[in-house]
Amino acid sequence: MNKSIVALATLTALSAAAIAQSSVTVYGKIDLGLVVDGGNPGGKSVRIASGETAGSRIGFKGVEDLGGGYKAAFQMETGFCADSAAGAPNFCTGSNQFMGRQDHGDLSGPFGTLSAGRQYSLDYGAILNADPFLTGLAGDVQDVIGDKTAIRLNNDVLYSTPTFGGFTLSGEIAFGETTGNWKAGREIGSGLLYKQGPLWADLTFYDADNANGVGVLRKAWQLGAIYDFGVLKLHGLVVSTKGNPTGALRPTDELDTMLGVTVPVAGGNVVANYTHRNDRTALTARGGGDRDATQVAVGYYYPLSKLTTAYTAFGHIDNEHGATYTVGNATENGTGNKAFNVGMVHNF
Amino acid sequence: MNKSIVALATLTALSAAAIAQSSVTVYGKIDLGLVVDGGNPGGKSVRIASGETAGSRIGFKGVEDLGGGYKAAFQMETGFCADSAAGAPNFCTGSNQFMGRQDHGDLSGPFGTLSAGRQYSLDYGAILNADPFLTGLAGDVQDVIGDKTAIRLNNDVLYSTPTFGGFTLSGEIAFGETTGNWKAGREIGSGLLYKQGPLWADLTFYDADNANGVGVLRKAWQLGAIYDFGVLKLHGLVVSTKGNPTGALRPTDELDTMLGVTVPVAGGNVVANYTHRNDRTALTARGGGDRDATQVAVGYYYPLSKLTTAYTAFGHIDNEHGATYTVGNATENGTGNKAFNVGMVHNF
Amino acid sequence: MNKSIVALATLTALSAAAIAQSSVTVYGKIDLGLVVDGGNPGGKSVRIASGETAGSRIGFKGVEDLGGGYKAAFQMETGFCADSAAGAPNFCTGSNQFMGRQDHGDLSGPFGTLSAGRQYSLDYGAILNADPFLTGLAGDVQDVIGDKTAIRLNNDVLYSTPTFGGFTLSGEIAFGETTGNWKAGREIGSGLLYKQGPLWADLTFYDADNANGVGVLRKAWQLGAIYDFGVLKLHGLVVSTKGNPTGALRPTDELDTMLGVTVPVAGGNVVANYTHRNDRTALTARGGGDRDATQVAVGYYYPLSKLTTAYTAFGHIDNEHGATYTVGNATENGTGNKAFNVGMVHNF
Repeated sequence: MNKSIVALATLTALSAAAIAQSSVTVYGKIDLGLVVDGGNPGGKSVRIASGETAGSRIGFKGVEDLGGGYKAAFQMETGFCADSAAGAPNFCTGSNQFMGRQDHGDLSGPFGTLSAGRQYSLDYGAILNADPFLTGLAGDVQDVIGDKTAIRLNNDVLYSTPTFGGFTLSGEIAFGETTGNWKAGREIGSGLLYKQGPLWADLTFYDADNANGVGVLRKAWQLGAIYDFGVLKLHGLVVSTKGNPTGALRPTDELDTMLGVTVPVAGGNVVANYTHRNDRTALTARGGGDRDATQVAVGYYYPLSKLTTAYTAFGHIDNEHGATYTVGNATENGTGNKAFNVGMVHNF
Repeated sequence: MNKSIVALATLTALSAAAIAQSSVTVYGKIDLGLVVDGGNPGGKSVRIASGETAGSRIGFKGVEDLGGGYKAAFQMETGFCADSAAGAPNFCTGSNQFMGRQDHGDLSGPFGTLSAGRQYSLDYGAILNADPFLTGLAGDVQDVIGDKTAIRLNNDVLYSTPTFGGFTLSGEIAFGETTGNWKAGREIGSGLLYKQGPLWADLTFYDADNANGVGVLRKAWQLGAIYDFGVLKLHGLVVSTKGNPTGALRPTDELDTMLGVTVPVAGGNVVANYTHRNDRTALTARGGGDRDATQVAVGYYYPLSKLTTAYTAFGHIDNEHGATYTVGNATENGTGNKAFNVGMVHNF
Repeated sequence: MNKSIVALATLTALSAAAIAQSSVTVYGKIDLGLVVDGGNPGGKSVRIASGETAGSRIGFKGVEDLGGGYKAAFQMETGFCADSAAGAPNFCTGSNQFMGRQDHGDLSGPFGTLSAGRQYSLDYGAILNADPFLTGLAGDVQDVIGDKTAIRLNNDVLYSTPTFGGFTLSGEIAFGETTGNWKAGREIGSGLLYKQGPLWADLTFYDADNANGVGVLRKAWQLGAIYDFGVLKLHGLVVSTKGNPTGALRPTDELDTMLGVTVPVAGGNVVANYTHRNDRTALTARGGGDRDATQVAVGYYYPLSKLTTAYTAFGHIDNEHGATYTVGNATENGTGNKAFNVGMVHNF
């Protein structure tokens, strides 16, 4: 729930006209809880954590009506560590940079929406929304699958069509900004979103050029879907990633799948997912390759009020052929192959 | 005085229901003044300073009623240097980290209050509140006594009982968060607070394990008290600290005392204190040990309005046996053994 | 347009009395657009940029009436990069420091205004306001003239008289804060501002002592003026700079001039300027000296609403005798001797 700051023409007068004129909204989230990691040979890790369901943050946003169906909008959002001040400069998430979570200006109208700035990628949108844990807690699908480097894109221009019959088509380009090399570090994305009745589905593509602009760094496609049966929601996700990371011993070739469920129970929601990474590179005699992993997790969210939710979760990973995936949460990578979470998140 | 941001359900509608629903409060302090330090062989230091009475800051906080006597609350607070941008990244106080002054989520109810995050330690509370200068200006008791490293604790879980007959009991544990070593860097605190009629008193204990979790880094107790006689307030503080800092030549053993007074004069308050550090380690032939120090200070706070206060102060330290304590203020350590302050602080 | 946060005495009650009591205002600007640089041998640079007309920012300010014609005020303002999170810690402008754009506390009354903190210098005020591009876009006069290091002064105390017959006199001193050396790094400024009817004029002086406090680092004077003929505004600026930068091969000696125009066209404003740097140091046989440069630029601002403005501009520089000035904008230095801008800025 956002809080809008009422616009005042003067410091002492409050008029309805002034309120309607414009506004900036302050919003945010503070998430604090306990994490117990196990399965690390070095021992247990017991921690107070900031951001188990999602990163603690504060943001500012606003919308201005330009008339004729056009609107200008903006949003900027910074993270912070709510548990400690241990990782200078303590923005914690969003690449540990000020307003690093989101920064964009938008123009919307009959033509659709055009946004520019630092914003969530289309491919991350498919992964985030398909996951019953919304990429948080000990069930975060990104513990084993997906690409954590392409969550937010810098210098990104994103266009979305208006919605027709439940469908929205989007395309984006994130400039590499290398002088004299248009393709170096450039990222391109596209997405087809469907949302109508009980079905939500999102198919996205992502393509990143390498730093020299002479080949593919990574190509991926994602298909996420949720079907709401009323008594429960069924979640599914497939992600295919191929790439040639610089300095890597072998090309990336992964096919990832997730099956999940959300079940309303006792005023809250039980969520569970089963996530599998299939590393399709061949197992070699010297080790490496075929590093599959399977995460199984279950959690419970209980709303204490409109703005405050208590949560708990447990997740476990089976690593194969030397894979070293750990159970983390929205803001931590974790230290072992199992983790327990309990805490509370307050939105404002 | 805090400013609450009125919650609006939409950007154009203002309804009483929406206002009552929830809110975030923006608050802060900007303190700017002149400091003249003397007594340094290198010469005088004349400076514009940010935060002589207390660090300049901006914070965001809120409370949500959960019903049944329960409330959820949060607070996050960042410092900034109001005089210059000289100490990157310029958060100035709170370990020079974003939201580094305070970050916590709280749950209160009939059981008491449970808080988690980065928060003021119980032992600092006793020192802060006993000092007539509130650990600010040229009379800050922490110029010569107390432990500036334990002001704020990371990963701290704090519980306070409800208040019974003026008494509140509190306990806290700040997790060290070392994998496989539960005790490494762990801090524990407890406190018994009494406040009724003209008497305020606070007795606190603090105990920090060392980085290897195999011994005491520092143990301390504090007893602060204020008695309000109407025509004046009498302040007293005793602090005992023992410890084994890593790499130190000898264990710490200090008994510190402060006697102070607050006298309402001409619409403002004259404050004064006498602070003595008794270094109980033995004086050695090669120097070191018995490094006592005595600070005497006087100041005046004059409220220009509800939110704005002008101030001035002077402090002087006598160092013994090679002690090198300097007269600072809430945010600076100072450069010499005497200092003069004048300035203005505005709260918002 | 600023948004004032309504003061509430409690979280649930909204009374007119509380609203009038005090307030903090949240304000800011988000500027996003496209930049195409040319004329660099390394090739074109195509970028999404934050802050072409002026740096993207968020600020907090407030005023309190002290009675008797006196007021206390404060302002603090931080920049952020709205396009990316590429230059840690991402404050982007204001020396890339938190609240680094402005931080000051002010006391005003019948005597005039006294401000202390980090604030814009008087000399920058003359340059900024005289430029039809307001030191933004591809026409920023500071691409070739003026002193980008003296835009904001740390530890600056500024006094301005009340305005008499259109005239305001100001003086400022920015403390160097070197212990034992009062003059080291000290900056002094003064200004005479006239504003009445169609004429605005500002004459300012700036004088900086070097780091050892034993000579001049830089001395400069600026004369800016604008005359509003109704159908257009004529802008003029002359800047003279002399100095002895440490480690420089020869003393600085520059006489800079700008002639500009603002013409209302089709609901917006066409702006143009011609800016010339005359490097008066002698051309030497081995190169160096007489490095003149001339920038010619034209732009158009079109207001989409009260708060949102679309813009475009083009600028070109002729460099002489090995000068290497580039066409930048308010927050970037640019990469070549010509640049094209298009984008949108939203104020809140």
